Amino acid sequence: MTSPENWSQKYLHYEFSQLALLECALTHRSHSAQNNERLEFLGDAVLGAVIAAALYEQEETADEGTLTRLRASLVKGESLADIATEIQLGDMLVLGGGEARAGGHHKRSFLAGGLEAVFGAVFLDGGYTAAHTVILHIFAARLGDLPDFDQLKDPKTLLQEALQAQSIALPVYTVLSESGPSHDPQFEVMCKIDRLNIETTGRSSSRRRAEQAAAADAFALLSQ
Amino acid sequence: MTSPENWSQKYLHYEFSQLALLECALTHRSHSAQNNERLEFLGDAVLGAVIAAALYEQEETADEGTLTRLRASLVKGESLADIATEIQLGDMLVLGGGEARAGGHHKRSFLAGGLEAVFGAVFLDGGYTAAHTVILHIFAARLGDLPDFDQLKDPKTLLQEALQAQSIALPVYTVLSESGPSHDPQFEVMCKIDRLNIETTGRSSSRRRAEQAAAADAFALLSQ
Repeated sequence: MTSPENWSQKYLHYEFSQLALLECALTHRSHSAQNNERLEFLGDAVLGAVIAAALYEQEETADEGTLTRLRASLVKGESLADIATEIQLGDMLVLGGGEARAGGHHKRSFLAGGLEAVFGAVFLDGGYTAAHTVILHIFAARLGDLPDFDQLKDPKTLLQEALQAQSIALPVYTVLSESGPSHDPQFEVMCKIDRLNIETTGRSSSRRRAEQAAAADAFALLSQ
Repeated sequence: MTSPENWSQKYLHYEFSQLALLECALTHRSHSAQNNERLEFLGDAVLGAVIAAALYEQEETADEGTLTRLRASLVKGESLADIATEIQLGDMLVLGGGEARAGGHHKRSFLAGGLEAVFGAVFLDGGYTAAHTVILHIFAARLGDLPDFDQLKDPKTLLQEALQAQSIALPVYTVLSESGPSHDPQFEVMCKIDRLNIETTGRSSSRRRAEQAAAADAFALLSQ
């Protein structure tokens, strides 16, 4: 079994002066009141700054909207959980017995939060420069292979731009139904493009996401 | 008329090596394609990290939810515009003719954005340490006088805690109506506390905000 110390050296290329910080970063709240939640708050902010600075330097022609979307795509929970999996962070997480038995070592929210907490711990241990070095090492591949700016647009925007390019009237979104209890609503939304006889529907617990889902289907039909 | 250089020394206590960075940070997009929007993106992230680190150190007993709310209250646009006004940043803003004549030097969104851009410029000019020093100097009074944690809780949370303290069943939220077009919906939500015969309503373009508004009224009734 790898120790946190060896894990950090292997995957972060970083040697902690204060190992207690790393241990705290790997301790989930299901295990102890002394856990990684405050470090996760700190690490999230430090990660945001380091990635913002890297994108600012690297993408000299990107406007602030594109920079914002690029950063969001890099630091979203899904991406962090993927990275945490790649560096086997789950094996290092210290969980309470119930969570451990329930497969908590593979829970994506625990992985993403743990990774942010580790960045927070590096920041406290070695300062901004250390955090900068570790984060850029961890994100090197992703920063070198950024998505096309177009892929960052949301489906409603993509659909609107495609229709405008063909001088077709914009789609109309209608809520078909809203159901479920107040704390767990379900929206079903239709996206209708009259000129093209396109009608698609999307469903989600948020109206906005339901619209985006419907728009994504309509955009797919349009692109066929 | 103060020069940007003198303004920075006076209010930021910082001397730029690269004055062009400061000038760019003070240039609104209404004036030039070479403007402060990218620096605003960077400065927002750097500000978030510096304030997160300061709060982490200063508020040793605050949990991550409280830290998040404290940070949000410090870095929200309203607070940034207030600070920008205090340090007379508006006089330094370089605007296009139309915006200048329309009173743009006092527009709160320009002030807030300009302040973030200035922080971004300090970061590029002097690194994280310089940004840290300038931001903590600018926020010293506010960090020394943080709002009570309770004031940061949202109305639904405050209401729930007050009811739980009296062992009263939690409120039920119901959507009374949803109207308006898809892009501009209006939700009317009722908050009902059976035991206390309290029924309040809230209205907003978002269901969540409508619930919060209804909860705020109910909490006010409860506290009378």
